[in-house]
Amino acid sequence: MIVEVIAVGTELLLGQIVNSNVAFVGRRLAEEGFDAHFQVTVGDNPARLVETIRTAAARSDAVILTGGIGPTQDDLTREALCEVAGRRLLRNEDYAGVIRRRIEALGREMPENNLRMADYPEGAEQLPNATGVALGVALHHDGTWFFAVPGVPSEMTAMIDEQVLPRLRTAEGRPAVLRSRVLRTWGLGESQVSHTLDDLYVSTNPSVAFLIDGPEVRIRITAKAEDITLAEELIEPMEHQVRERLGAAIFASDDQTTQGVLLGLLDKRGWTLAIVETLTAGLVAARLKSVPESNAFVGSLVVDEAGLVKRLLNVDLPPAADAGTAAAALATSVANLFGADVGAAAVPAAPIDPERGAQPVAFAVATPEKSQTRIIRLLGNPERVRTFATQGVMHVTRLGVTGVWWET
Amino acid sequence: MIVEVIAVGTELLLGQIVNSNVAFVGRRLAEEGFDAHFQVTVGDNPARLVETIRTAAARSDAVILTGGIGPTQDDLTREALCEVAGRRLLRNEDYAGVIRRRIEALGREMPENNLRMADYPEGAEQLPNATGVALGVALHHDGTWFFAVPGVPSEMTAMIDEQVLPRLRTAEGRPAVLRSRVLRTWGLGESQVSHTLDDLYVSTNPSVAFLIDGPEVRIRITAKAEDITLAEELIEPMEHQVRERLGAAIFASDDQTTQGVLLGLLDKRGWTLAIVETLTAGLVAARLKSVPESNAFVGSLVVDEAGLVKRLLNVDLPPAADAGTAAAALATSVANLFGADVGAAAVPAAPIDPERGAQPVAFAVATPEKSQTRIIRLLGNPERVRTFATQGVMHVTRLGVTGVWWET
Repeated sequence: MIVEVIAVGTELLLGQIVNSNVAFVGRRLAEEGFDAHFQVTVGDNPARLVETIRTAAARSDAVILTGGIGPTQDDLTREALCEVAGRRLLRNEDYAGVIRRRIEALGREMPENNLRMADYPEGAEQLPNATGVALGVALHHDGTWFFAVPGVPSEMTAMIDEQVLPRLRTAEGRPAVLRSRVLRTWGLGESQVSHTLDDLYVSTNPSVAFLIDGPEVRIRITAKAEDITLAEELIEPMEHQVRERLGAAIFASDDQTTQGVLLGLLDKRGWTLAIVETLTAGLVAARLKSVPESNAFVGSLVVDEAGLVKRLLNVDLPPAADAGTAAAALATSVANLFGADVGAAAVPAAPIDPERGAQPVAFAVATPEKSQTRIIRLLGNPERVRTFATQGVMHVTRLGVTGVWWET
Repeated sequence: MIVEVIAVGTELLLGQIVNSNVAFVGRRLAEEGFDAHFQVTVGDNPARLVETIRTAAARSDAVILTGGIGPTQDDLTREALCEVAGRRLLRNEDYAGVIRRRIEALGREMPENNLRMADYPEGAEQLPNATGVALGVALHHDGTWFFAVPGVPSEMTAMIDEQVLPRLRTAEGRPAVLRSRVLRTWGLGESQVSHTLDDLYVSTNPSVAFLIDGPEVRIRITAKAEDITLAEELIEPMEHQVRERLGAAIFASDDQTTQGVLLGLLDKRGWTLAIVETLTAGLVAARLKSVPESNAFVGSLVVDEAGLVKRLLNVDLPPAADAGTAAAALATSVANLFGADVGAAAVPAAPIDPERGAQPVAFAVATPEKSQTRIIRLLGNPERVRTFATQGVMHVTRLGVTGVWWET
């Protein structure tokens, strides 16, 4: 099934916003095996919009339009679909009443224009909008499917996933629901994960795939079924197997964040955390402070000059000391400085190489129960080394807090 | 003049990368007053690429293709242009030799494919690539201009600005060179800048425009002329006037960064800087450490719990103390802790409001010469408050280091 995406909006042509919508739709279509040959961006011009839809319809099985279904006179997607399909524009009076009451409840005046968001081409289905007002459109005409979804990314993504893709799957005679679980691992290489899960990749429903994102290897389990419950029932035993094989390397699923997981574990133990950022320069602190729900993170000391580190924390940095020894001493010392239960540190074993190269970094965590060190070679330019080290500090701390460790 | 942009690459259709190239080209075309009606993305498919170019040529005066001019068999833009214009594909043997020698000098084997980057349609001009290998193409055929530029953003932007736009301007009979200077200000509101420069906005060459970017108001002076020297001569007196009127509010021009400017000023004085990040949680440290050229920044203490601040820095936070007093005391205390010449701090006058609202923040800087405090109301959610506070800390420090202050 060939699907063409049309992005509607003069602001896109003018480059005032980057068109991330078509990238999202393109990625979701590709993940589900639909073909895409063209993506077209067109401004808020009626004749050119109609021309673009006609061209797309002639060469595709389905056309998805993003944008142009809001309340203003510039929003022309519904009218253009009516012209292409030779339909009248009707108004859903029930929904018009909903819009009217919603705005009047806010004590605002109700511009008549707003009711345009209740309009639809005769014979089309209206698609619910989970987070916004404008209804989407699904219209089957002359062998082609037409969909109109909002241009606002949050409204668009939900409508694509929940309304458009199920209809495309049904139109192709596939099961309507596709559900994914993403398991995030840290500390294992791509080949280790691939080898450990080798025999699982042959499964087709659920399917198992892995993807690399920075220092993480992510495993995605995807099931197709008639409904969500059946899809979850397919995912569950596979997730169980993957978790059994990869154990503590899995630290999060779906949209959980590394910092959220770490702070949750600290809160569970009732422990506080302090860090010294010799290498990461405040990046770990910024991440940990982005989670307002937890007070477990109490402070960070950003310092990298050897004399100053000696004075403030009484620790010798390399080359005066071994990096592993220095990291362990820093973790303990910074916990003492801030009066925290847990301390963590990362120390480059040598100065950061401004050229690309491997940078060995010693990570250490000190908890009331034990103290551990781990050396990891980070690759890339200084910025990449800092980013990977930021993740490394959080993960080594997480392992220390959970009391899990493994040899590499 | 109507210009259509075609982005070439299957990876764009699959949503593997977001197409920021067309946004850039669209913005630059709009800034220069060219019209854009359509942007089309097409995969690495010869027939569909030719069809897309033909359609674009039929409805536009110029067609800009991004991508598809690299060395691989998937790079088909040159061949497609040849087919559309009925030209033979020729090889620039001199440049092929350059490519060959460059790769052999790296001690690598030279794949013959690489020489495709020296190919061009008969009668076309080859456009130099400032940062990469593949040459661009400019071809005038049957009343339409065709340009092919690389898909790599850094190569693309330079070629658009330096090669494509001058040719489009010339084709329209306009002066070939357009030069801009951006002056960045902090601490003045949009209306203040607008009012102060009111009579300058009537100037058309150079033109004066202002734009808001976060906490900054930027003034862009743009001149059109026959060559760069003449354009610079038009900009210079206008820049002088703007600088005279806005004074110390202007802190940088063009691509200079806030952190680069601040560290440069510190280096000039021979001063070191330490900060306490009660509010900004490591974000200032991360910015200051991103400039490898300077060692002026010696450390940051990330801490916000009142008892811990009292213990480490002997300063009372609000509500126990007034925010301005607390900020000034923290700036002095953190400089002492790290043995730095200059200390800086930002203290929220009240806990951060998780709902949108105005957050009064006290900023302080202590230098060997003087100590200053300033209260600024920051608007928005906590993330935005932290981002604006990050800029605020750097700017208040900059003002303290330069010894400039003004009343608000």
